Amino acid sequence: MMDLTFSTVALLARDTDPDVEETVELLSALLLGRGLQVRVTAETDFADLPGVQSYAESELTEHCDLVIAIGGDGTMLRAAKLINRANLPLLGINRGRRGFLADLSPDELEQKMCDILDGEYLRESRMMLQATLHGSRHLKQQVHALNDVVIQRGATGQMLDFEVKVDGAYVNTHRGDGLIIATPTGSTAYSLSSGGPIMQPGLNAVAMVPICPHTLSDRPVIIPGNSCIDITIRHRFEADAFITVDGNMTDDFSNTDSLQVTQSIHRMTLLHPADYDYFEVLRSKLNWGHYGLPEKA
Amino acid sequence: MMDLTFSTVALLARDTDPDVEETVELLSALLLGRGLQVRVTAETDFADLPGVQSYAESELTEHCDLVIAIGGDGTMLRAAKLINRANLPLLGINRGRRGFLADLSPDELEQKMCDILDGEYLRESRMMLQATLHGSRHLKQQVHALNDVVIQRGATGQMLDFEVKVDGAYVNTHRGDGLIIATPTGSTAYSLSSGGPIMQPGLNAVAMVPICPHTLSDRPVIIPGNSCIDITIRHRFEADAFITVDGNMTDDFSNTDSLQVTQSIHRMTLLHPADYDYFEVLRSKLNWGHYGLPEKA
Amino acid sequence: MMDLTFSTVALLARDTDPDVEETVELLSALLLGRGLQVRVTAETDFADLPGVQSYAESELTEHCDLVIAIGGDGTMLRAAKLINRANLPLLGINRGRRGFLADLSPDELEQKMCDILDGEYLRESRMMLQATLHGSRHLKQQVHALNDVVIQRGATGQMLDFEVKVDGAYVNTHRGDGLIIATPTGSTAYSLSSGGPIMQPGLNAVAMVPICPHTLSDRPVIIPGNSCIDITIRHRFEADAFITVDGNMTDDFSNTDSLQVTQSIHRMTLLHPADYDYFEVLRSKLNWGHYGLPEKA
Amino acid sequence: MMDLTFSTVALLARDTDPDVEETVELLSALLLGRGLQVRVTAETDFADLPGVQSYAESELTEHCDLVIAIGGDGTMLRAAKLINRANLPLLGINRGRRGFLADLSPDELEQKMCDILDGEYLRESRMMLQATLHGSRHLKQQVHALNDVVIQRGATGQMLDFEVKVDGAYVNTHRGDGLIIATPTGSTAYSLSSGGPIMQPGLNAVAMVPICPHTLSDRPVIIPGNSCIDITIRHRFEADAFITVDGNMTDDFSNTDSLQVTQSIHRMTLLHPADYDYFEVLRSKLNWGHYGLPEKA
Repeated sequence: MMDLTFSTVALLARDTDPDVEETVELLSALLLGRGLQVRVTAETDFADLPGVQSYAESELTEHCDLVIAIGGDGTMLRAAKLINRANLPLLGINRGRRGFLADLSPDELEQKMCDILDGEYLRESRMMLQATLHGSRHLKQQVHALNDVVIQRGATGQMLDFEVKVDGAYVNTHRGDGLIIATPTGSTAYSLSSGGPIMQPGLNAVAMVPICPHTLSDRPVIIPGNSCIDITIRHRFEADAFITVDGNMTDDFSNTDSLQVTQSIHRMTLLHPADYDYFEVLRSKLNWGHYGLPEKA
Repeated sequence: MMDLTFSTVALLARDTDPDVEETVELLSALLLGRGLQVRVTAETDFADLPGVQSYAESELTEHCDLVIAIGGDGTMLRAAKLINRANLPLLGINRGRRGFLADLSPDELEQKMCDILDGEYLRESRMMLQATLHGSRHLKQQVHALNDVVIQRGATGQMLDFEVKVDGAYVNTHRGDGLIIATPTGSTAYSLSSGGPIMQPGLNAVAMVPICPHTLSDRPVIIPGNSCIDITIRHRFEADAFITVDGNMTDDFSNTDSLQVTQSIHRMTLLHPADYDYFEVLRSKLNWGHYGLPEKA
Repeated sequence: MMDLTFSTVALLARDTDPDVEETVELLSALLLGRGLQVRVTAETDFADLPGVQSYAESELTEHCDLVIAIGGDGTMLRAAKLINRANLPLLGINRGRRGFLADLSPDELEQKMCDILDGEYLRESRMMLQATLHGSRHLKQQVHALNDVVIQRGATGQMLDFEVKVDGAYVNTHRGDGLIIATPTGSTAYSLSSGGPIMQPGLNAVAMVPICPHTLSDRPVIIPGNSCIDITIRHRFEADAFITVDGNMTDDFSNTDSLQVTQSIHRMTLLHPADYDYFEVLRSKLNWGHYGLPEKA
Repeated sequence: MMDLTFSTVALLARDTDPDVEETVELLSALLLGRGLQVRVTAETDFADLPGVQSYAESELTEHCDLVIAIGGDGTMLRAAKLINRANLPLLGINRGRRGFLADLSPDELEQKMCDILDGEYLRESRMMLQATLHGSRHLKQQVHALNDVVIQRGATGQMLDFEVKVDGAYVNTHRGDGLIIATPTGSTAYSLSSGGPIMQPGLNAVAMVPICPHTLSDRPVIIPGNSCIDITIRHRFEADAFITVDGNMTDDFSNTDSLQVTQSIHRMTLLHPADYDYFEVLRSKLNWGHYGLPEKA
């Protein structure tokens, strides 16, 4: 290991939770004590911590060589959004309950953090998605996703009909509440709630998971990670639909738009403690082995 | 309450588990100390406990007015089988981890048991099923089930085609691994693993749940509890199938047999502590509220 | 049969579909030819048909003794909404493809319609739900549903936490996209897409089906039809949620509201051709027997 | 194309179906007419067809350069078993209803077959699995699978506990009816009935799909195609379990055995008509677009 020496670390956290605040304080002291520069977001209470530098969130990660998110997987996704164009490594410290992404626990924080600063860590590269929304006349938006790109119907109670092509080949016209395009990282998030499978992070694949499909045989389809997915709405009337990226509403999706989802040229670099074990995270988060059903007699 | 005074209690337990043995000892001393007669199975180690009477398992529950099963839900089902023709109440003490049926915990045993003997309990009547297997020429078997009657394919790897009628009306010819007919009590057992819904115990209904159905739209069907279900095998070749009742293999099921499942005239009377809460059991057994997935950002 | 003589019939249909228009023309001529009075909605093209009477939709069914919906199940639900306080029978004619509710086919229309007018029909009474939305200070709305009452999150991409009680007993705090409360009639609609079971129409039961639940063991629960369900939102922030009844958005659902769902005092009377077979409708609509998977070798 | 000239063709079919027989006759005449050598299985009625050569099934494919299976996907799997060590291309002609694998229809047989013999075809290479069963002291068996390797419990009604490792890392101890290890090709077979996703054939991945799992969060896991999966039984008593490969029972699986599943060094070469479209096969086989549910109003 020892391939990287960190010098400037950005901390990202919400300042509304006392447990998070305590962890940020502890962490900034630890990092400053080891001679590193520590940056926090200007608009937060953390800006008053001794020795830290405060920046607008949009500039927080510039010239840093490590980003640490303190909170849950939501904070990790926010951090991912900040850094997805840089090639910065991201480390997550959970707020008590371990996340799929924020896997460092507060009670082991000091020891594990020192090990990581000493170069004892695992470095993992995760694929991301790029979503490009084309309007009838112009490009409307291009965003990157660590977890998922979701097309969903709006609040009218009306199902959507939307057409999906993969690498130019027509797949299906789905009818239902929407469609999730998930990376392996996102396979344990919303996709799992909608019936999608768990995909090991190293898998080069993307899941297309229908949400509450009208047709019962309209099941999740797994395709190679470098596929190009094109989605358009096929609806008699003006559809009420929208696009969500990593859980944040991104844009409306109209009948004349087309959405293209491909593998992003960006990847997310996650740092884990050296004893990180993906399947152990799964077992813990999904209560595997805590049997929910009685043994048959 | 106070509507019942117990005088003779049958204890049913496996003698292979030290935790169970300890509970049986404690319980028999408590019951004997309150002047009750206590019966145990002759073939077990419990026959040596001071003051107890030992009987063959088949005669264990005769002239008793309470049966207590110590163990898991499997032991409860075994007890149910012993008493399903009598109208004896059944109480379950779990072996550490609470069951759906065995809901009294060892750590609260003494207090709760005394309350129950004082008449402080809930009495609940649960519906049972009757399964009648007709051969081509004669009645092969008639059994009663608290949880479920299951038709399953054998070990050949060959799917089954079996035809189902409800109250004489043709429903479907299922193709797949089998079919579960479950009571509300059984809805949280094998049926739940196969995609069936949870049914509140008081519901007068039966679930027909296909096992790994070939047709993806072949979904669980809930019918009134007093329905009459007829099942026959429709297979080109001699099928390799069998019938399981409450988790115990009961008989082979051949192409010329027909199986009729109806509500049993017997019901199971369960006793619960006075503070019994069905939904609390569900929450506890199914880890509800222990979220397995991360919050969306 | 012959228990009912129809004299005034209301026809409900959308006038945007040529197939529907043709059926309405044929049907009105047939009914008028048999001496019945025929009413149509004033705002539609059907108002110009010879011999018919036109009324505002809100008054269409007054003093009628039969309502006929021509279209799909959506039109049936619209008709149900119009008549759910009267005790009018409803007959559905589908637009080509049979519906779960609109089960009379155009190609058999004349013969079947004459049989029905001669008293050759089945009369079926279906349970309905009543949804009462209480605001913090006043009753906001009370509506009736033939299919389902649905609580759903809005377009923010944020999951909902909502607490459910049945007959005053706490069941669960669901986290996810929402919850469907479905009648047996609604069990083959949105509920089925969300993993709910099929419930035979005669069953006196209600399904509570979570939509994309965060907790994987948060499964459909079936409770007795006369249960009282109370739902409130438990969310840190002001939730963005709304209520849909039979597929129509009905109201916003705020953190200070509470929604009570019970069996309605109204029931829906459906008329079917004398040879109506519920399971045949299921087989046809769900493609049962059209196997979607290959036989195992 | 034109990269291959066929000279000797083996035909594999069951001789119990008149439709199949007719197709075999037509096909052998067509092939012989174009100067090719045609081989059939000696034990079948086809051995009497004029001009064909008959061989024992075990020698049928030796020195051939094309195998044609006539029947359903079951016949395709039988053909795959015969040729999985050779690098022979396999073409499937279905018996009326299109299969996932047998995708050439009888009504287009002559034209499509001539095109294929002229070199107008698609050549597709599908991954296979290798299953190695180690007994306590010796290798018990090694087999290859095009669809799936399945571990299942026997006819006792007793659930299995079995431990799974991937590339040496402990994944989970499953409790339930069994586990399916499926290739992308097998993802539309038994795996789909058990809740597994559809995987595009080109995906380099393997699905591990639990059968009726006791733990509701025990969901399908997709791992890279070159993973090494080790399975052992963890059961208090002697388990009653067996192994099925491509739908054929292969061996018992005892508590002291261990099963290793890896990617096979063999691959299956499928030939398709030039206009072959995988998604079109999916849409057709799974009735996509034949909506099974009514539109919400």
